[in-house]
Amino acid sequence: MIPEYLISETPFWLKEEGLFSEIVLSSRVRIARNLEDTFFVQRASADILQETMEKIKESILNMKNIRSFIYMGSLNPVERQFLMERRIVSHDIVEKVKYAGVGISNDEKAGVMVNEEDHIRIYGIMPGLNFTEAYESADDIDNFISKELDIAYDKEFGYLTACPTNVGTGMRASVLIHLPALVLTKEIDKALRSFSQMGYLIRGLYGEGTQVQGNMFQITNQRTLGISEEKIIQNLSKMVRELINYELNAREILVKNAKYEVEDKIWRAYAILSSARLLTSEEVINLASAVRFGIGLGIITSIPIKTLNKLLVLTQPAHIQIIFEKNMHAEERDITRAEFVRKILSGGENG
Amino acid sequence: MIPEYLISETPFWLKEEGLFSEIVLSSRVRIARNLEDTFFVQRASADILQETMEKIKESILNMKNIRSFIYMGSLNPVERQFLMERRIVSHDIVEKVKYAGVGISNDEKAGVMVNEEDHIRIYGIMPGLNFTEAYESADDIDNFISKELDIAYDKEFGYLTACPTNVGTGMRASVLIHLPALVLTKEIDKALRSFSQMGYLIRGLYGEGTQVQGNMFQITNQRTLGISEEKIIQNLSKMVRELINYELNAREILVKNAKYEVEDKIWRAYAILSSARLLTSEEVINLASAVRFGIGLGIITSIPIKTLNKLLVLTQPAHIQIIFEKNMHAEERDITRAEFVRKILSGGENG
Repeated sequence: MIPEYLISETPFWLKEEGLFSEIVLSSRVRIARNLEDTFFVQRASADILQETMEKIKESILNMKNIRSFIYMGSLNPVERQFLMERRIVSHDIVEKVKYAGVGISNDEKAGVMVNEEDHIRIYGIMPGLNFTEAYESADDIDNFISKELDIAYDKEFGYLTACPTNVGTGMRASVLIHLPALVLTKEIDKALRSFSQMGYLIRGLYGEGTQVQGNMFQITNQRTLGISEEKIIQNLSKMVRELINYELNAREILVKNAKYEVEDKIWRAYAILSSARLLTSEEVINLASAVRFGIGLGIITSIPIKTLNKLLVLTQPAHIQIIFEKNMHAEERDITRAEFVRKILSGGENG
Repeated sequence: MIPEYLISETPFWLKEEGLFSEIVLSSRVRIARNLEDTFFVQRASADILQETMEKIKESILNMKNIRSFIYMGSLNPVERQFLMERRIVSHDIVEKVKYAGVGISNDEKAGVMVNEEDHIRIYGIMPGLNFTEAYESADDIDNFISKELDIAYDKEFGYLTACPTNVGTGMRASVLIHLPALVLTKEIDKALRSFSQMGYLIRGLYGEGTQVQGNMFQITNQRTLGISEEKIIQNLSKMVRELINYELNAREILVKNAKYEVEDKIWRAYAILSSARLLTSEEVINLASAVRFGIGLGIITSIPIKTLNKLLVLTQPAHIQIIFEKNMHAEERDITRAEFVRKILSGGENG
């Protein structure tokens, strides 16, 4: 079962707006840790995984900031997908459910995945560009856990992880960024190439192995070894600010050279979103992308950015089914989604 | 120059709604006549055409019902297209402009084209299914002209015309009918085939040689010889009523089997029409078709059918340029059209 509060309350990162919120949806930091004196997840037996999970669960539930712990194995596929859509668990943990679990903090500002690739994956998430606070949330949990449990650490290499690419700080910082003008002006490849060359990963909405949708890109640092947490965050922040400037320049050019085409695209998207009777998830993402662009350009002023953020998350397939407490086939979801979108846009859904 | 009243006033057939107005846009009757003791248009010299035009012009301007006479040769191409879009002149007369003209009645209920294919082509037009009144308007003019001018008539064949297909009554009755459900259910070919087999012509929005757009079909009788005017009208009316029943049946089936798909299509069309910042004529026709369908189904109740009829006529390329008193290239028209459509839909254009 998904705890009732996850369904009825809106997570902090969707409820509030942060720095550059029109362009940056969220900033996320995750820290990989493993217990000492036991096997990594891939090598561990069922018994050991079970034991590891209980140990970590007990520890994190001691933190007053952690509100609940969910065993992934106790969920049905729709419920597991709900947590993934909510960005509480990763794609990976949805695949390996048997001995995995997740602890969730108040306001969904942070969480701890247990027995995903590593024993412990702590994350912190904030709206807008705000790695500092996202890191603080994750770091608080890390500090707490490190006092209670023995964490695998090597003086030379730093934190030991299941995959060598995470060794060192074990930290990844990522940003979900909306770049419609760079896509429309076809500058996007050039803009992202420099990120790739500097060792950043560019991915889709839900991280590794997922597609780019609605002009939203996830950018993540690759380097974790021989660099401090502060430096990782500093470097990525700097790059993201540059990217924001590219995007703002492209917006200026578009408004100058294709004012009516841009306005037409935006108003049509808003109209369809507010009027359609059938909407797929994919279409919502694409229409919401155009509307978000319109808010950024000051064309649409009647709805705040955070309403669009909510739209993106709450109208996903598993969310629709959990919120409306019904297993639905695709067309049923599309009908319900269209109705729900109208409700959210008209401010009737306070989550 | 186009007389100012044609620009500022809305013609009767767009302003009012008639029988079956949700399905039948307009009923039109036209009568072909030729002067005796002179050459048919195709055979006549410039001098004779000029003389014929003046003769007919003088006669029809004696009717108190005729408000103005326009020499086609005095118009620029946009102005000529305006009259064609308004259905005051035919496609054909726009091609042969030099010695052609048109007299227009009050309210645009009727008119007389001079030197199109025949010397005289009288038409009457009414909203909805109403051949009787359309015929009366045309017949009034015919009776008046026949008293003043010698009309070519043969006791055996009836009225003589330039093209043998018009000999006899010289009358054609046509209906502009909107059949979206028959198109969506793919029943349209079957439904129209019986019309073809019974000798009716099926054509597009602007008559001969024009394409079917927005699910609107023009159906015209082909037979003019050995049949009375009353019988032509009776037969076509009966056939049209049958076609209306087919369409209504198809609507019922669609609403039963594809409720959400139909509603989605309609609401999206209405939303785009009300929100787009760029609209081509073609898109307006297609969107207006969906909205008209929605009004017929009782889904859209906020705008009357006649508003959609106005939309179809007033947003055409020449109308846009004449109403806004500016020659515009395509994108300029699309911008102005989108703005004008919003104004018409919000009831701000009383025409």
